[in-house]
Amino acid sequence: MAVKIGLVGTGTVGGGCIDIINKHRDEFARNIGADIELVRVCSLAREEAEAHGVGHLFTDDFHQITTDPDIDVVIELIGGTTVAKTIVLEALNNGKHVVTANKALMATSGEEILNLAQEKGLEIAYEASVGGGIPIIDPLKHCLISNRIDSVLGIVNGTTNYMLTRMDEDGMSYDDALAEAQAQGFAEADPTADVDGLDAAAKIAILASIAFNTRITLDQVNAEGIRSIQAEDLASAREMGYCVKLLAIANRTEKGVDVRVGPTMVPLEHPLASVNGVFNAIYVVGDSVGETMFFGEGAGAGAAASAVMGDVLEVARHVQQGILPQSEPSYADELPLVPLDELRTRYYIRMAVQDRPGVLAATSEVFARNDVSVYSVIQRGTEETKHDQVDLVYVTHTALEKNVRAAIDEICEIDNVLVGDERPAVIRVQK
Amino acid sequence: MAVKIGLVGTGTVGGGCIDIINKHRDEFARNIGADIELVRVCSLAREEAEAHGVGHLFTDDFHQITTDPDIDVVIELIGGTTVAKTIVLEALNNGKHVVTANKALMATSGEEILNLAQEKGLEIAYEASVGGGIPIIDPLKHCLISNRIDSVLGIVNGTTNYMLTRMDEDGMSYDDALAEAQAQGFAEADPTADVDGLDAAAKIAILASIAFNTRITLDQVNAEGIRSIQAEDLASAREMGYCVKLLAIANRTEKGVDVRVGPTMVPLEHPLASVNGVFNAIYVVGDSVGETMFFGEGAGAGAAASAVMGDVLEVARHVQQGILPQSEPSYADELPLVPLDELRTRYYIRMAVQDRPGVLAATSEVFARNDVSVYSVIQRGTEETKHDQVDLVYVTHTALEKNVRAAIDEICEIDNVLVGDERPAVIRVQK
Repeated sequence: MAVKIGLVGTGTVGGGCIDIINKHRDEFARNIGADIELVRVCSLAREEAEAHGVGHLFTDDFHQITTDPDIDVVIELIGGTTVAKTIVLEALNNGKHVVTANKALMATSGEEILNLAQEKGLEIAYEASVGGGIPIIDPLKHCLISNRIDSVLGIVNGTTNYMLTRMDEDGMSYDDALAEAQAQGFAEADPTADVDGLDAAAKIAILASIAFNTRITLDQVNAEGIRSIQAEDLASAREMGYCVKLLAIANRTEKGVDVRVGPTMVPLEHPLASVNGVFNAIYVVGDSVGETMFFGEGAGAGAAASAVMGDVLEVARHVQQGILPQSEPSYADELPLVPLDELRTRYYIRMAVQDRPGVLAATSEVFARNDVSVYSVIQRGTEETKHDQVDLVYVTHTALEKNVRAAIDEICEIDNVLVGDERPAVIRVQK
Repeated sequence: MAVKIGLVGTGTVGGGCIDIINKHRDEFARNIGADIELVRVCSLAREEAEAHGVGHLFTDDFHQITTDPDIDVVIELIGGTTVAKTIVLEALNNGKHVVTANKALMATSGEEILNLAQEKGLEIAYEASVGGGIPIIDPLKHCLISNRIDSVLGIVNGTTNYMLTRMDEDGMSYDDALAEAQAQGFAEADPTADVDGLDAAAKIAILASIAFNTRITLDQVNAEGIRSIQAEDLASAREMGYCVKLLAIANRTEKGVDVRVGPTMVPLEHPLASVNGVFNAIYVVGDSVGETMFFGEGAGAGAAASAVMGDVLEVARHVQQGILPQSEPSYADELPLVPLDELRTRYYIRMAVQDRPGVLAATSEVFARNDVSVYSVIQRGTEETKHDQVDLVYVTHTALEKNVRAAIDEICEIDNVLVGDERPAVIRVQK
């Protein structure tokens, strides 16, 4: 008997899932013994269901899915943390396995949801919540499980990676790159979640929890976005042998775990440096496996639907073959979070300064006094029209974040140094 | 009660497995509920077992592992297809789950072994047989299972990738690169399996079987190695915007599956192009997921042991939690193999020719008559000492392999064209 699927959300990814089922259902049954049947779809837009040929399965009431005793697996694809949470919890409480692509939900209520599923003996799968179609959650939970994971670095937001690639390769300004990303459909009209790093923060919270067997939630991730990055930063970076990526970072350190999102200078020879455009990649370092990287399309109907349906087919095989859900890891390691202030790394700092004697001396004195050792400094003119200002670019040796911040705050207070009220651009440098 | 492990093979990878167990056993039990205990190790070298602190578990008789009623999981790491096969079959016949890293065995006797495991209700896992520590078999069997896989392209032999990288970046000759790889321990004293593409052929047979749900065995894979590649080919490739990689290729085509290994020109912007040195990567294209790539260390004790122990821990969790093995895919799609003769692709052909009038005309006439359309031709002098010879490099449009071969055979027969008896170097060009 077929495993019955109920789908909530018929947007891009939901539509992609319906298409996969329509196209490959026979092969799934024949090749891997997963006979699945889509029996109900729910959304606010009947025409979306109709467009994918499943108008006859349509409902606008999700309870018709979460409470239908015939349904075995519920797919939640509406996103957000309110209605989606109700759907997921209600489905589990009614004995249904759940597959979701919802990063925000898993990064905020993951513990509650995983515990409920465990308690009910049900499966909850969320591969599509990070990296679109790229297998990363399953490899971390299974293939790489024999490792102590030391580091997870991800380019997990396609919108910002597209923008940074355009700014880097074509010298485009931030505003132009954003406008183009919006015109291409890669960025939302309100790009906040992408450009401020919040989307990436949810994803790294999920990955860090699995990689470090601990609980990291969205609110514990320090997120910085790319709004202050300009094309000249990318050009300077390249001159120094780096590119700039919005990295989602989770490092195991002696003092605890360091989990954050921010624009980062990545050496050009690093595997992440050649991940361009809307592609995503997650770079993982483990104590046995060494360096690994998982690369692919982070967005788009097909890629995310591939991951959702991979989860659905896994659950369906288990249901059909009477295979019990594997118990979740304990997530019980109590690892302190390293406060951002205590971070030790290298920094790139660019400031637009007045072109007059004494500015270099004044700024370098502030760094020295704050125990920030300078590795290199470059001063160069910017646009020809700005005769009275120059860009001053410092790169530091490894320094303490709070010292760097203090130095920058001080520099902002000195009279006649910075031009206008633009704060220096700060980009951390990845080894 | 602990899941009891017996290990056969205490070389590099076996030693790595023992180290992982010694180091992380407590965490495995605590974090993922996999309480494993190594109870016996077998090899021909007691000192290897002693070096990893398990001399007290040593035996030189594998039957003490395959027939021990206390042992739940047997790890086979001796390689080869004779004794290893006996061990794997005997272990399964005695009711033990098996984990192996043995590519040659799985590429030749995979069907027999998988069927026996299925029949006995046991698990057989072999993630480490391809790509060292890189998760690829599990992602293909699970995460990407909703896709029709169209293409798998792998750099799956670290030795040859290291050699090609040295030849490319440092202009080293084939012989010097091989000597260096041997000195570094990356290549065996007898490098045949690596440089002739046989190692890669076994790996692509395994991947193609899974990706296309069919049975491909080692003997069905056409393997060409890198012996005829010279530094000047890498230089020419780079001028044209390509690098040369030994690719293991499995393509789904309208006429069937095209599975082969050979030196291949890869566009510099392709994700595989930046995979250098001993690193491996497998690039997979699926109808929903689009392009994905899995990158990491293809060799070395830690990387392969990471994959072996990932499999062991998966099986151990199943044993401990009473989870049944998932049934294998059917591998039942009957897809014809595309004969190499029928392959249609582009070709790079370099020949050392005599520097005299008429050579270009004579050779290009042969290509034309064999229906091989020339895309570009470059003639240039080689070393200064060879005044009377030049390198003639043809790149073709898409052409039929057998026509290209026929043309080259003909060119070899023309008097006073080629210098000496060296056959032209042929490198297929990847789109």
